[in-house]
Amino acid sequence: MGKIICTGLGPGDPDLMAVKADRLIRSAAHVAYFRKCGRAGQARRIVEGMLAPGVTEYPMEYPVTTELPFDSAEYIGLLAAFYDHWATRLATLAAAQDVVVLCEGDPFFYGSFMHLQTRLQGRALVEIIPGITGMSGCWHASGTPITWGDDVLSVLMGTLPEADLLQHMQAADALVVMKTGRNLPKVRRALAAAGRLDDAWLVERGTMPGQRVARLADVDTADCPYFAIVLVHGHGRRPEVPE
Amino acid sequence: MGKIICTGLGPGDPDLMAVKADRLIRSAAHVAYFRKCGRAGQARRIVEGMLAPGVTEYPMEYPVTTELPFDSAEYIGLLAAFYDHWATRLATLAAAQDVVVLCEGDPFFYGSFMHLQTRLQGRALVEIIPGITGMSGCWHASGTPITWGDDVLSVLMGTLPEADLLQHMQAADALVVMKTGRNLPKVRRALAAAGRLDDAWLVERGTMPGQRVARLADVDTADCPYFAIVLVHGHGRRPEVPE
Repeated sequence: MGKIICTGLGPGDPDLMAVKADRLIRSAAHVAYFRKCGRAGQARRIVEGMLAPGVTEYPMEYPVTTELPFDSAEYIGLLAAFYDHWATRLATLAAAQDVVVLCEGDPFFYGSFMHLQTRLQGRALVEIIPGITGMSGCWHASGTPITWGDDVLSVLMGTLPEADLLQHMQAADALVVMKTGRNLPKVRRALAAAGRLDDAWLVERGTMPGQRVARLADVDTADCPYFAIVLVHGHGRRPEVPE
Repeated sequence: MGKIICTGLGPGDPDLMAVKADRLIRSAAHVAYFRKCGRAGQARRIVEGMLAPGVTEYPMEYPVTTELPFDSAEYIGLLAAFYDHWATRLATLAAAQDVVVLCEGDPFFYGSFMHLQTRLQGRALVEIIPGITGMSGCWHASGTPITWGDDVLSVLMGTLPEADLLQHMQAADALVVMKTGRNLPKVRRALAAAGRLDDAWLVERGTMPGQRVARLADVDTADCPYFAIVLVHGHGRRPEVPE
């Protein structure tokens, strides 16, 4: 009887993977990962050169991405069937042996694996291994701490309504905005309205080859990848209090 | 000519350290770490059994912790002198060889090393290696994703005024509250006022021996360590939109 081990891969540099994840991935006989249909997939790319000879790979290809509105019945139905299918497939595999599922960043931080995990309850043993988040890779790429002292950090999705973005951008000291892409013009307007655009940075491919760190005010918002992250660093409300 | 390499240690389990951190720590000849005077220190405890024979250790002992108000001139002066002293000492050491500085969690996420880093600019080469945050270790200990979909996550310090805590607790979907300890009764009141106490968890020593996960409503707030973290999980505003 095996189990399903979902492991975080960290922000992209394989050297930033957890020791435990590195060991598991190198010795795995069965490895599954999400990817967009027709693409190599970022998770698979991170482990390039690490997989054991003879490994069996299971690319879990999303049936749909941006072709349909995310809140349409058709989109929701297709995604649910996709997760149902793979939950069953992984549970069947895990009845006989361990299966390692690769997840970028940290699986418990906006990870897609949770859609499988909820469906696997009572059907298979599941273990989750944390990873350094993609946002952490991005603030390291920026060379500056994201928070210190009593800073409030808020993590926002670019898909949120502009008014919600503005409210949170005004209330927090430090900001991380994910899911940018086509939402970037809206994110930029909200940051400007909150008086924070001049302190905002756009980080692409943090810790990976081709890493790019730019002032958001200088970026062409029409050309932004979905995975790029916007950061506004905190400045510390007051000194830290060790206890 | 050496450099100062500050490495994150992750949440506590040495197996969750980054591969790069693990390698550096095992081969280091000079290792420095913060600790409270008279204590072994959490950072040093995490690397127990990993340091090379003959390593030279530099415990950087805080001159004061909770004996003085954190905003008093005396406290601020003592801390500043402490950081000045160690910045000079580390810069001197790094002129001849590499020095590894150990930091719990992620150095760029509420880390004390930044007080040294600001003082070391132009005086020594400094490299920072990220780590899995302590909060990530805690939400993994809870067994449930902290965020999914379009959840807003806010990270708050228990030292904030109660009205600020309440405002953020009402506005965000998922919450992490750090620096709890003697602030826990205030944190608990704010969560109750925001209608979120029943969904709040207290996690102590996440990923470490003696890990404890309890519903905050059931915890005796008079007895809470400073490093324990309060979590409220998000539930996902809507399905994820892969792109």
